[in-house]
Amino acid sequence: MIPFNKPYLTGKEAHYIYQAVFTGKISGNGVFTKKCHSFFEQHYGFNKCLLTTSCTDALEMAAILIDTQPGDEIIMPSYTFVSTANAFVLRGAKIIFCDSMENHPNIDAEKIEALITPKTKAIVPVHYAGFACDMDKIMGMAEKYNLFVVEDAAQAVDNYYIGKDGTKRALGSIGHLGAFSFHETKNIISGEGGMLVVNDRQFEQRAEIIWEKGTNRSAFFRGETDKYGWVDVGSSFLPSEVIAAFLWAQLENLEDIQKKRIKIWQTYYERLKDFAVANEIALPVKPHYSTNNAHMFYLVCKDVEQRSKLIAYLKSKDILSVFHYLSLHSSPYYKNKHDGRSLSQSDRYTDTLVRLPFYYELTDTDMQTIINEIKQSLA
Amino acid sequence: MIPFNKPYLTGKEAHYIYQAVFTGKISGNGVFTKKCHSFFEQHYGFNKCLLTTSCTDALEMAAILIDTQPGDEIIMPSYTFVSTANAFVLRGAKIIFCDSMENHPNIDAEKIEALITPKTKAIVPVHYAGFACDMDKIMGMAEKYNLFVVEDAAQAVDNYYIGKDGTKRALGSIGHLGAFSFHETKNIISGEGGMLVVNDRQFEQRAEIIWEKGTNRSAFFRGETDKYGWVDVGSSFLPSEVIAAFLWAQLENLEDIQKKRIKIWQTYYERLKDFAVANEIALPVKPHYSTNNAHMFYLVCKDVEQRSKLIAYLKSKDILSVFHYLSLHSSPYYKNKHDGRSLSQSDRYTDTLVRLPFYYELTDTDMQTIINEIKQSLA
Repeated sequence: MIPFNKPYLTGKEAHYIYQAVFTGKISGNGVFTKKCHSFFEQHYGFNKCLLTTSCTDALEMAAILIDTQPGDEIIMPSYTFVSTANAFVLRGAKIIFCDSMENHPNIDAEKIEALITPKTKAIVPVHYAGFACDMDKIMGMAEKYNLFVVEDAAQAVDNYYIGKDGTKRALGSIGHLGAFSFHETKNIISGEGGMLVVNDRQFEQRAEIIWEKGTNRSAFFRGETDKYGWVDVGSSFLPSEVIAAFLWAQLENLEDIQKKRIKIWQTYYERLKDFAVANEIALPVKPHYSTNNAHMFYLVCKDVEQRSKLIAYLKSKDILSVFHYLSLHSSPYYKNKHDGRSLSQSDRYTDTLVRLPFYYELTDTDMQTIINEIKQSLA
Repeated sequence: MIPFNKPYLTGKEAHYIYQAVFTGKISGNGVFTKKCHSFFEQHYGFNKCLLTTSCTDALEMAAILIDTQPGDEIIMPSYTFVSTANAFVLRGAKIIFCDSMENHPNIDAEKIEALITPKTKAIVPVHYAGFACDMDKIMGMAEKYNLFVVEDAAQAVDNYYIGKDGTKRALGSIGHLGAFSFHETKNIISGEGGMLVVNDRQFEQRAEIIWEKGTNRSAFFRGETDKYGWVDVGSSFLPSEVIAAFLWAQLENLEDIQKKRIKIWQTYYERLKDFAVANEIALPVKPHYSTNNAHMFYLVCKDVEQRSKLIAYLKSKDILSVFHYLSLHSSPYYKNKHDGRSLSQSDRYTDTLVRLPFYYELTDTDMQTIINEIKQSLA
């Protein structure tokens, strides 16, 4: 059996968890949490990082920070995970879904401007498969209309946007706020887990308060205030040190993990590209303004029947491949709230995209088996 | 140095974390999560359990489940943690704070009825120090006025309410919903962590959906529905299997942990009771309708000066004691939203309650040192 995903242990996770316990502190915001924050801040130029229990929670923090109010409109792709939308729906927002690009599941930046109204509060680009959205265009529009940009960088750890002048900026560092995931299917994992990146300094202080259950605990322990109490809304967004210790072991091996994943991605790509062209199957497209963090490898089939057949065939050969998002605008929860616009690219990816097994320990032999069976099924 | 708290490792935490990783699943709702759910359900007669990333998150789930709307009134003690209130404030509720009892920090059930209005939606009793609130009275009032009861059982694991007929019911199993904490300061820990108990069956199905980010994923994987998608609001309330594996190691040792903690509690009590009477210091009072889970040991000083002096004195002797909640009704965030009623008992506990060091590995020698120094300071 070749699974779809297999969490990778670097070997030091348990060691660091023990270390955390021996310091006497395994609740949140301890030594390992701070080590992770510093790593991300220094490595990627993130202004301020806060680990969270999930990317969902990071997005919820973002929704609170930009002061999302009932009736506010938030523009995001329909082809995304439910949490991208739920975080803002929980604050009463209306979600304005935008279509994906024809050659990429990412939000079609050309179509955003037509959706902006006086009620629009934010744009939430999702970097699908880790590939950058067209951030210059999106940030330009945000500036023009005075909107916030929250990057859903759930899949985009260690990836970069390449500007017109060739400079690279880490994904998650460009919008006013950014959200990452360390769910077990991601490149760097802690089971469940996430992180909010606060790039706009106006949100720094409040982010810390909301993170600490609406209290000024952090400022109090830094001696910046003489009273510690309830000063704002908030939640328990911070993860246990057990989670941060686990994550730290992963971060120490980031380079090795990424090297391995990029090799896997390239192997899939090289061995499938000619076959894909010949059989009208699409492979992932790396936009010219994006680097590749090798988060996932997918195929876009001709239609839903071909995809169903492929998934079933691979399953019969003990290979687990999976389809991905279902367009949120036509979900049971949102279809009556959606404005009725057709989002044909989003629906197409819903029907035709299939993700192949992708994990650190995937062997070349297994990959060749997968590729052979794909060719067997689709040729 | 005698710390205030020291997380206790049973020894098998890392072993189970490794096991979780080897199953290939460390995101939420895996084998260990299910083991923890079953343990609690069988051991305490809880109808349905769902692990959460914190007690805060369990309370937020409860606030969503009872359909808290802007303007709804929620009655709870002012002497509690911010999360008890924040969970409902995030849904737009107004908090109606109730005073504590004269002889106990728990909500004064005699004072609740006068606070009930047509807008009241729920009562949230908090079992302070693990001791039961007057649940017969509270449930009776809830029935009379058609209100929900959400038990904040953050500190109340393994404790029981004793009914008039002598029957014991586990705290957390009595209200429509119950919330537990496994924060590192609790009897049973996972660093950060919590659990929602769903006793009222009307909430069962929706609780599972909200827990799984507003999707019907769980029902889908049980084969109860043929489509899996976005069906409701929700969040990522479920913790990593890393956390559940850690918690499982603790649960296996629940009996041993509780035995040890009860011994510590009784030692403090026996060695301080005469001194307390002679010096007008109050010790914890176990209500006649409650058992004791030995969550914490506290003293109630005569006034804030005496308490400050005591904490400072103990600190000078390398003993860390801490004060506890600050009345929420007079917090910076809520003082202008509160209706102005004086809550004198809550304010008194704010000023005078001090928690003594309390953890599994606290030795008899250390306890005797603490007791001697307390006598030195207060006599």
